[in-house]
Amino acid sequence: MSNTKNAFYAQSGGVTAVINASAAGVIETARKHDTRIGKVLAGRNGIIGALTEDLIDTSRESKTAIAKLRHTPSGAFGSCRYKLNSLEENRREYERLIEVFAAHNIGFFFYNGGGDSADTCLKISQLSRTLKYPIQAVHIPKTVDNDLPITDNCPGFGSVAKYIAISTREASFDVASMAKTSTKVFVIEVMGRHAGWIAAAGAMASDENTPIPIIVLFPEIPFNRKKFIAEVKRKVRQHGYVSIVVSEGVADRNGRFLSDQGLVDAFGHAQLGGVAPVVANMVKQDLGYKCHWAVADYMQRSARHIASKTDVDQAYALGKAAVQLVLKGENSVMPTIVRVSNNPYRWKIGKARLSRVANVEKLMPANFISEDGFGITTKCRDYLQPLMQGEDYPPYKNGLPDYVRLKNIAVKKKLNTQFKL
Amino acid sequence: MSNTKNAFYAQSGGVTAVINASAAGVIETARKHDTRIGKVLAGRNGIIGALTEDLIDTSRESKTAIAKLRHTPSGAFGSCRYKLNSLEENRREYERLIEVFAAHNIGFFFYNGGGDSADTCLKISQLSRTLKYPIQAVHIPKTVDNDLPITDNCPGFGSVAKYIAISTREASFDVASMAKTSTKVFVIEVMGRHAGWIAAAGAMASDENTPIPIIVLFPEIPFNRKKFIAEVKRKVRQHGYVSIVVSEGVADRNGRFLSDQGLVDAFGHAQLGGVAPVVANMVKQDLGYKCHWAVADYMQRSARHIASKTDVDQAYALGKAAVQLVLKGENSVMPTIVRVSNNPYRWKIGKARLSRVANVEKLMPANFISEDGFGITTKCRDYLQPLMQGEDYPPYKNGLPDYVRLKNIAVKKKLNTQFKL
Repeated sequence: MSNTKNAFYAQSGGVTAVINASAAGVIETARKHDTRIGKVLAGRNGIIGALTEDLIDTSRESKTAIAKLRHTPSGAFGSCRYKLNSLEENRREYERLIEVFAAHNIGFFFYNGGGDSADTCLKISQLSRTLKYPIQAVHIPKTVDNDLPITDNCPGFGSVAKYIAISTREASFDVASMAKTSTKVFVIEVMGRHAGWIAAAGAMASDENTPIPIIVLFPEIPFNRKKFIAEVKRKVRQHGYVSIVVSEGVADRNGRFLSDQGLVDAFGHAQLGGVAPVVANMVKQDLGYKCHWAVADYMQRSARHIASKTDVDQAYALGKAAVQLVLKGENSVMPTIVRVSNNPYRWKIGKARLSRVANVEKLMPANFISEDGFGITTKCRDYLQPLMQGEDYPPYKNGLPDYVRLKNIAVKKKLNTQFKL
Repeated sequence: MSNTKNAFYAQSGGVTAVINASAAGVIETARKHDTRIGKVLAGRNGIIGALTEDLIDTSRESKTAIAKLRHTPSGAFGSCRYKLNSLEENRREYERLIEVFAAHNIGFFFYNGGGDSADTCLKISQLSRTLKYPIQAVHIPKTVDNDLPITDNCPGFGSVAKYIAISTREASFDVASMAKTSTKVFVIEVMGRHAGWIAAAGAMASDENTPIPIIVLFPEIPFNRKKFIAEVKRKVRQHGYVSIVVSEGVADRNGRFLSDQGLVDAFGHAQLGGVAPVVANMVKQDLGYKCHWAVADYMQRSARHIASKTDVDQAYALGKAAVQLVLKGENSVMPTIVRVSNNPYRWKIGKARLSRVANVEKLMPANFISEDGFGITTKCRDYLQPLMQGEDYPPYKNGLPDYVRLKNIAVKKKLNTQFKL
């Protein structure tokens, strides 16, 4: 074991249906290279586990248990919303990380998260230089928001997209059945603070074979009540009913969220929720149509039961690629998905410098949103369709998915110092 | 065709993931007995189609299309919320039905619905006697609320139960991952105006292999804020997080719904929605925990993508049985599910007199709810488990379920009279 270094792996930010598939990719690949990588130590509750020296020894988990991660949603080691400040602002956090990494012979750092986490990972990757601690840091992309740059798409998104498209199709069939005497409008609220990728997926519920009247409200398009109500009226008159997919982040032209609860999370982002009833009430008030509304919330990002096979495969491949990158000596990079062709869909793994990823948010391109602002273009469809392709059903036991819970045994602490978060 | 009579089939009330499986059972079985049953004519938008002489000729649909009904959610012919008054109150509606039935040689009446519809079906079944029109009326049970008497369970319920249990398990895995620094409480609102069957299914998310802290709020149990908040606090202290499954119909001891929007539907039932945010706000106010909340609404009852196989099989079998009952000369009955054994689960078809079914609502038995009022008993688990058993995945096309839309071609009208609804 003289030449081996241990690896640290942590999950960060909102979890997804496939982030554990990336974890499986990391752990299974690392196990195959045990002459170079010792143990994979996972942070309990993300980076907090590193700061508090609460490290999970994944070598205590059986091969079977790790394989089951591939079909288990959520963050198996716990995640957190905890943003590291810059080195200048909070040097003691970085020094603590080095203290813990050194105590546990950690030379590889894998951070599985979104844009904020890419920034954290970038800072860690610079520790070699700034604090003279040798470490290779690789970021593994994950975000249902699909808003990371460079990579063609982000693991977690394809499965949410599939779930939202299916749910919108199913609920639309329902409201179509009821519309004659009862509900004419169905509203579904989906995630997406700034980027309308998930909302766009709702529009995929409708296609050539199964046309469905759908209105999408994107966070990228300032909400205009008059125009919206006119479109609802038009669609109900024409089809008898309409489904509305509304992003939680929809705001008016002054940037005021349709439903702002005034809360912020640890990253300083506004906490939203409840825009669906706001929209439903508007329709009821202005047009008198009976509405039903749903809020998908955590259900959408944890719906492993109907995950996209493309998404699961890519999440696993990115975890695997992250390990291969450190074995090649890389630091401060993120493996990416590169789209090779659309039809048939082909993809491969690429890589991006973290400095180009951190703190860049990829919104929907203008040519993905239809001219009226309420739908998606063919270009957008061609982009989304392959990401939702294929089913990857988990095994079932007693009528329910058989998801794994790891033992999550802690490594014995080696430091006698405490760290106050 | 001299001796054959046509059949009328209609879907009534809220639709489900498997009501079309019952329709397939009716149509496929009737087609096998074409010496006795002529065409199956479906009411467009339920009984309204009969009143307005808007009848769909199902013989125009291919064998393949009808077979696809088995995996298609919603009401393929349209449903409605329209309650027939008693013969005394509105004789003209019954006379109109007879006029339409006679014009189209209809001798068999199949009504696919819940408690209110059973009452309508009972009234129709009495037309033979009261208005001297020979008809055999059979009710096919359907309701996600699972609140019909005599039958062991109702088609539609098992699939909602499965969906809610899975969604609660998945979202609970999610909140468990986030609880350290973010969301500690997840609230999911489910259907169930008076009966807590669907809410009970949420508790199934937790089992011996996968224990999850869950609090269920039943409509059968008067809501007590103090006791509820104490239980949330206890569970979060013990497990770090908790999931709350709340029925839309939860009310306080004065019968006041936690979230009453003051609306009523055509049957005079209060229209609810939005109890989840009410509960989440209470928890936040009283305990300060960060909460997330979801409202499943139509998604739960249309989620054919994860329907229970037991449910699909039973829905089909009941449609088939309804046809067999009229062939045996029965009138004014409903085929039922009879549970033969629990382990292994075995069931058979029985029958009930409609007079014993109509307007009787089956709530959760007291011994199905745990003593503290926040969970379910082993007896309840033993009842629910087999109803959620098995998966019956629909076929997929381009990443989405391939649900059928029928041609729904109208029969030529034979009457030159209009009917004003």
